[in-house]
Amino acid sequence: MDRPGGISGPDSIAVATGIVEQYRLVRRRTEELCATLEIEDYVVQTMPDVSPTKWHLAHTSWFFEAFLLTPRQADYRAPHPLYNYLYNSYYVQIGERFHRPDRGLLSRPTVAEIYAYRAHVDRHVLDFLEAADDRTLEEVLPIMALGLNHEQQHQELLLTDIKHVLSVSPLRPVFREASAPENGQTVSADGVPALEWIAFEEGLHEIGHGGGEFAFDNEGPRHRRFIHSFEIANRLVTAGEYMEFIEDGGYRRAELWLSDGAATVEREGWQAPLYWERIDGRWHHFTLHGFREVNADEPVCHVSCYEADAYARWAGARLPDEAEWEVAVSLVPPEGNFVEYGALHPAAMEISARGPLYQMYGDVWEWTRSPYAPYPGYQPPPGAIGEYNGKFMANQMVLRGGSCVTPHDHIRLTYRNFFPPDARWQFSGIRLAKDTGRKP
Amino acid sequence: MDRPGGISGPDSIAVATGIVEQYRLVRRRTEELCATLEIEDYVVQTMPDVSPTKWHLAHTSWFFEAFLLTPRQADYRAPHPLYNYLYNSYYVQIGERFHRPDRGLLSRPTVAEIYAYRAHVDRHVLDFLEAADDRTLEEVLPIMALGLNHEQQHQELLLTDIKHVLSVSPLRPVFREASAPENGQTVSADGVPALEWIAFEEGLHEIGHGGGEFAFDNEGPRHRRFIHSFEIANRLVTAGEYMEFIEDGGYRRAELWLSDGAATVEREGWQAPLYWERIDGRWHHFTLHGFREVNADEPVCHVSCYEADAYARWAGARLPDEAEWEVAVSLVPPEGNFVEYGALHPAAMEISARGPLYQMYGDVWEWTRSPYAPYPGYQPPPGAIGEYNGKFMANQMVLRGGSCVTPHDHIRLTYRNFFPPDARWQFSGIRLAKDTGRKP
Amino acid sequence: MDRPGGISGPDSIAVATGIVEQYRLVRRRTEELCATLEIEDYVVQTMPDVSPTKWHLAHTSWFFEAFLLTPRQADYRAPHPLYNYLYNSYYVQIGERFHRPDRGLLSRPTVAEIYAYRAHVDRHVLDFLEAADDRTLEEVLPIMALGLNHEQQHQELLLTDIKHVLSVSPLRPVFREASAPENGQTVSADGVPALEWIAFEEGLHEIGHGGGEFAFDNEGPRHRRFIHSFEIANRLVTAGEYMEFIEDGGYRRAELWLSDGAATVEREGWQAPLYWERIDGRWHHFTLHGFREVNADEPVCHVSCYEADAYARWAGARLPDEAEWEVAVSLVPPEGNFVEYGALHPAAMEISARGPLYQMYGDVWEWTRSPYAPYPGYQPPPGAIGEYNGKFMANQMVLRGGSCVTPHDHIRLTYRNFFPPDARWQFSGIRLAKDTGRKP
Amino acid sequence: MDRPGGISGPDSIAVATGIVEQYRLVRRRTEELCATLEIEDYVVQTMPDVSPTKWHLAHTSWFFEAFLLTPRQADYRAPHPLYNYLYNSYYVQIGERFHRPDRGLLSRPTVAEIYAYRAHVDRHVLDFLEAADDRTLEEVLPIMALGLNHEQQHQELLLTDIKHVLSVSPLRPVFREASAPENGQTVSADGVPALEWIAFEEGLHEIGHGGGEFAFDNEGPRHRRFIHSFEIANRLVTAGEYMEFIEDGGYRRAELWLSDGAATVEREGWQAPLYWERIDGRWHHFTLHGFREVNADEPVCHVSCYEADAYARWAGARLPDEAEWEVAVSLVPPEGNFVEYGALHPAAMEISARGPLYQMYGDVWEWTRSPYAPYPGYQPPPGAIGEYNGKFMANQMVLRGGSCVTPHDHIRLTYRNFFPPDARWQFSGIRLAKDTGRKP
Repeated sequence: MDRPGGISGPDSIAVATGIVEQYRLVRRRTEELCATLEIEDYVVQTMPDVSPTKWHLAHTSWFFEAFLLTPRQADYRAPHPLYNYLYNSYYVQIGERFHRPDRGLLSRPTVAEIYAYRAHVDRHVLDFLEAADDRTLEEVLPIMALGLNHEQQHQELLLTDIKHVLSVSPLRPVFREASAPENGQTVSADGVPALEWIAFEEGLHEIGHGGGEFAFDNEGPRHRRFIHSFEIANRLVTAGEYMEFIEDGGYRRAELWLSDGAATVEREGWQAPLYWERIDGRWHHFTLHGFREVNADEPVCHVSCYEADAYARWAGARLPDEAEWEVAVSLVPPEGNFVEYGALHPAAMEISARGPLYQMYGDVWEWTRSPYAPYPGYQPPPGAIGEYNGKFMANQMVLRGGSCVTPHDHIRLTYRNFFPPDARWQFSGIRLAKDTGRKP
Repeated sequence: MDRPGGISGPDSIAVATGIVEQYRLVRRRTEELCATLEIEDYVVQTMPDVSPTKWHLAHTSWFFEAFLLTPRQADYRAPHPLYNYLYNSYYVQIGERFHRPDRGLLSRPTVAEIYAYRAHVDRHVLDFLEAADDRTLEEVLPIMALGLNHEQQHQELLLTDIKHVLSVSPLRPVFREASAPENGQTVSADGVPALEWIAFEEGLHEIGHGGGEFAFDNEGPRHRRFIHSFEIANRLVTAGEYMEFIEDGGYRRAELWLSDGAATVEREGWQAPLYWERIDGRWHHFTLHGFREVNADEPVCHVSCYEADAYARWAGARLPDEAEWEVAVSLVPPEGNFVEYGALHPAAMEISARGPLYQMYGDVWEWTRSPYAPYPGYQPPPGAIGEYNGKFMANQMVLRGGSCVTPHDHIRLTYRNFFPPDARWQFSGIRLAKDTGRKP
Repeated sequence: MDRPGGISGPDSIAVATGIVEQYRLVRRRTEELCATLEIEDYVVQTMPDVSPTKWHLAHTSWFFEAFLLTPRQADYRAPHPLYNYLYNSYYVQIGERFHRPDRGLLSRPTVAEIYAYRAHVDRHVLDFLEAADDRTLEEVLPIMALGLNHEQQHQELLLTDIKHVLSVSPLRPVFREASAPENGQTVSADGVPALEWIAFEEGLHEIGHGGGEFAFDNEGPRHRRFIHSFEIANRLVTAGEYMEFIEDGGYRRAELWLSDGAATVEREGWQAPLYWERIDGRWHHFTLHGFREVNADEPVCHVSCYEADAYARWAGARLPDEAEWEVAVSLVPPEGNFVEYGALHPAAMEISARGPLYQMYGDVWEWTRSPYAPYPGYQPPPGAIGEYNGKFMANQMVLRGGSCVTPHDHIRLTYRNFFPPDARWQFSGIRLAKDTGRKP
Repeated sequence: MDRPGGISGPDSIAVATGIVEQYRLVRRRTEELCATLEIEDYVVQTMPDVSPTKWHLAHTSWFFEAFLLTPRQADYRAPHPLYNYLYNSYYVQIGERFHRPDRGLLSRPTVAEIYAYRAHVDRHVLDFLEAADDRTLEEVLPIMALGLNHEQQHQELLLTDIKHVLSVSPLRPVFREASAPENGQTVSADGVPALEWIAFEEGLHEIGHGGGEFAFDNEGPRHRRFIHSFEIANRLVTAGEYMEFIEDGGYRRAELWLSDGAATVEREGWQAPLYWERIDGRWHHFTLHGFREVNADEPVCHVSCYEADAYARWAGARLPDEAEWEVAVSLVPPEGNFVEYGALHPAAMEISARGPLYQMYGDVWEWTRSPYAPYPGYQPPPGAIGEYNGKFMANQMVLRGGSCVTPHDHIRLTYRNFFPPDARWQFSGIRLAKDTGRKP
């Protein structure tokens, strides 16, 4: 079935009746994430990739306005006619947009005005849903599902971005106090289990999303792929292992790096993951719970794909292909250290589900060596909504599995996240793979 | 007498007793300027030259801390040890400073924390003054005077900067509602009087500050200068006259421009003064009272020295030398459209004092053709305070006379303001001059 | 068999005896390409991607020095000890290199000195080969083969770069006069045949190089890949068809472009392929034969991958996957408009081999939609030679089939060229593909 | 008398008859400077400020074409219609110009073609002068004088620029072998005489050019200036003295620097004058005679105005005002180490004329603390020729006295050279001054 938005959605009215509750829940959850913020924190943009918190709050509302309210309610009016210009992120078919790197230059609208905007959109969306007949409801379910998944993506971005914003202040503010003993600070007496390789045989596999539940268009179509035999690590690379790479001169040994990676290291002066700082010979880092020493047992985080790739080469391994990752993870239930757990930080191994594969979901997004490209037969939906994913299929790499700031019910086996290979401000880490039979 | 800070100050204890009241007044006035701001407005930095309002509030407090409290009170402690790093603007002899273009990246300390910082400094300064004996009071009077004049400079910058900050929002917020009929919006039936030339004979003149009242070190020493005969315009160039320059292709005729000016016009795409926008064939601009049509009778404002120079060449004239300006203005009392008048915008001619020379003070800073250079015998005071003015004597031009956002008691005949020739965000305008006998 | 350089090479001594002749031939061919150049033409670097001709002449000699002479002849000395620094392109394991974008700043060594350098290296290489016993010969054959293929790559780059160099002079110099009626200027009465779609069934295919003849390491290992059914165009997109895209507003319609592509179009101001210029409503372009009108029947050339992708979307199609291309081309002999043909320009369709697929080889490199990534099991050879290909596997796209400036015996079915998606100065063009059953 | 070009010129026909000889001499001298260059050396532009040698050769010819031949010979034709576009440097009233930083991208026209262009212009100029009647001759004398002085300026720039071009090659080519014992390499047993201060009384002086012999327009009008008493150093600052400044941490002590200077030091990483390099603890530098150790007795050279100013502050002195310099130098004949002397490098003190003031002319251009501004009453001549000097009167500083690469008969007491304060590739050095009575 071809639906507006080109996404597959739920098939029964039963689900439709739940949409109001889901809408309320997701929208409220976004605002709850801001509970500890000062007004000033909502305003700042610390680099072009980061958006101010208040922009996230507004843009997620605009999404419902642009794709649900405006097309279906002739008399709908935004609180200000320029909001469509200010809060359109990148949909060129919807019109001109405010220049992205300048989002932090706007003191107005104020935070209060933006919360009012959210309330305004909520009122209209809920009124709309209430008044809708079954047929209409069925029609709009896909766009509602997309809007809510979109908002969940921005929940993660909001946390990722506010971490960067708070980190640049020399005052090192705390986003949220850690609740003891959360977050792997209690290291097991034995430390992290040894890295083991889990082997998979070659064969023709199906990967990608096949319909049914919600998925983004870029996760499909489901298709066959021949996968050569490979082995994948049973757990994530730890901060302690990564420190060994640093100690071994990893950042200075250009032969370990992709050419673009080496150039980035030199240009940016990278010597460790983002947020790391060496004090008196010991590594510390900024976290959402404040500044503290790095726990060697926790998964390394905030590394770029270049760093992940160089680490893998140093370790005699490589990054997994996204198809390999998907085949491997099919053994594992989608449980892990997600945002609901409250850690807001990757956790040492104890927390995760049972093996043989650990930490596949949550904790950190896992860089793959797969460039973000369309699956065979992929076709974005027509219209502006088709810009959601497809137009970014260049110069980006796929990441899999979600992180400690991803909502649990947002992730799934086929989920494809993507970022440029030099991006580090995401909660991104490393899982190793290798060709069968190759000695690391 | 050589005083700390290298500035001349008042000579009697009588003045000393007034310093507490002055301090209270100036400090309060700074905060009053922020009365209409939202918290969000305090945070933003829209270009490297602009500082966030909260930075101005903190830095002016830091100044008293760094030059009065810390040197004289061994047990003085700032609310946070990093404030000295965050709020030192450019005094290298005081230590490392936070990177200027990144001032807008800091959400913390919050606005409330900075008001608390101001109160903290105020309490300590006032306690100090109260406890000081006469001798100490006399010693610190120069630095107190400098600190208050410094704060007045930042009052002007605060307004100049917040204008820029508010202007970038497409929502075009109003800083303060205009009170009718302020600000020259009532144009006299006759319009602006004709431009007339006031002639001065050649001769040896004394210019510069000779001591007595407070002055910045760069205003002295008083010295002789031979000035050739010249003529100076009786009033400022109006917006209407400047529109004629635009209509005549002024911005496209490279032969009218200094070479660096022509390059700037091309690089920046300038076609009119800063804040001007043509709508349906009529010029509008952003003001502190909101967005509105340009009044042709008011002085043109927010032009760079390059634009002022090109306009003058187009008009067959030139900009005055700063010594010429000082000789001419000695005929005129220091009255005009200053910040206390409340217009916050240059005013059409009726408002100003009587002739033969009009608008010499207030309204707009007047670009001169004098590069900012030391007067003969100038020597900055020793120590960090010597960095206040002297180190900027390169690549800047002198402006004279104050503007509609300058405090009245801050300005005087010998006052030398200075900005790079491409700066436009100041309230800067144009007065013409010419060599005697030359026909424009 | 694992050889130094990780490349597969010929297996018999019979081939070994031919290597001297091949060496002489390839080296001479490089110099023949420069026959029409002035000394001044050898020196200039018109953008960072372009290298001066004299750099190409030196670097290809350095390659034999660094990988053959220096490792195997203890007493070998370069004419100047700094040549190893100046002419190492990117091999970090060999040492520091001169900054690439500054290659055009060096007037010395002179062109004559560089020809002397070539002669010096030739003498030593030929002496070495002559003196080598069979075992040594067999050992060095792979590196000799790599060196000669490397030099052939630079023959193509030399022509590509000199085209750019000559093009920036307003004098529009001619690299080589065209010999009538070369180069498709004689358009057949009927014009170009209609575009037809050639269909391929889904199935498991083997692609990649399987050993035997020389191939670059990135072409292997040969491996299985499941390919979904697809259709591929029987010929290249013509300049005339591309003009229709331009006329239809192709460059201004952001919805046709990848996001990075749209940003590039805006930043660079692209409105047509590189070298195109509209004069009196008709498209002209700079060619190696001088400046002339674009022949609508010839394949469009000097487009980036972004432009190729946008054109394909506009045409209701897509670019082929590199595996699809390889499967399709296996029907076709490796014949076409290569550098030996002398056209130095893509040719209208008559010139090419018989169908059903035309112009698969030569004319223009064909952009695929495949990011340049390692094949399953790919491992670069150890040591500096391993930097030849592997470290560039990020942010680049694969191109296939060779161009009108590629040496004929340099190309093969499995050949993978790669450039960033915004590169336009290569002779790169467009072949369309589509999913089976989709209507363009 | 007002002449075309706004310059004062010779008044007698006797001089007119000498112009042909002068023309031949100056034009030949330019070409003689290139005697040791390779073709490749003519082509390269190593930074935007530097022009290729062949550009200098062409541009100086274009000057005669644009200001003499084209206006006065209706049938004059340049060898190529685009030469007017390629070789116009900055005269906007003459038309569009080729982008300055791209001058090094042009391999064509070739060096041979440019020598042919010179010969073409010479033939036409000499034919013109030969055919001219007395009245015409008198009319064109000013433009001829300007053209020859212009060419002499470019003789100096040609040497300054080729020094930079040759310096960037790691091969360190020699422009011209030094003839022993030229260039102060023989240091007198006693070293350099002590620095002494020569005092001048305050008073009203006349400075500037008053007509008669040729001078550039910016040297006039002659006018009165009141000069306060001052003292000026009897000789230039030596390289050895400058080394002490470096050893004393001069480049790291921000309090010694103008604010823009400190920013430049940090951005550019300056640690010593241009061309200096420390090897095994001893300072070496690149000279037109090759790379060699710095002679501590020779004047320091290739410093920016920022460095000169910081050095002066470190030494307890300041730079002279240009009027002070002119008053002081009126005691001294215009003799010194000019280009004709052949040293092509500043010389230790023995070479110069007798005291009390040494090295005022030649050796190095002396930075003053005077921004380059118009003299009272200055008016550039009308038309394109008025762009020669006037439009550069912003952001530049005046230098006085000529250098070791200045033609002797090009310099005079009133000569004002000007460069931005961060320029270092000129042969520029330091003379100290101070206010009377101030202790250094």
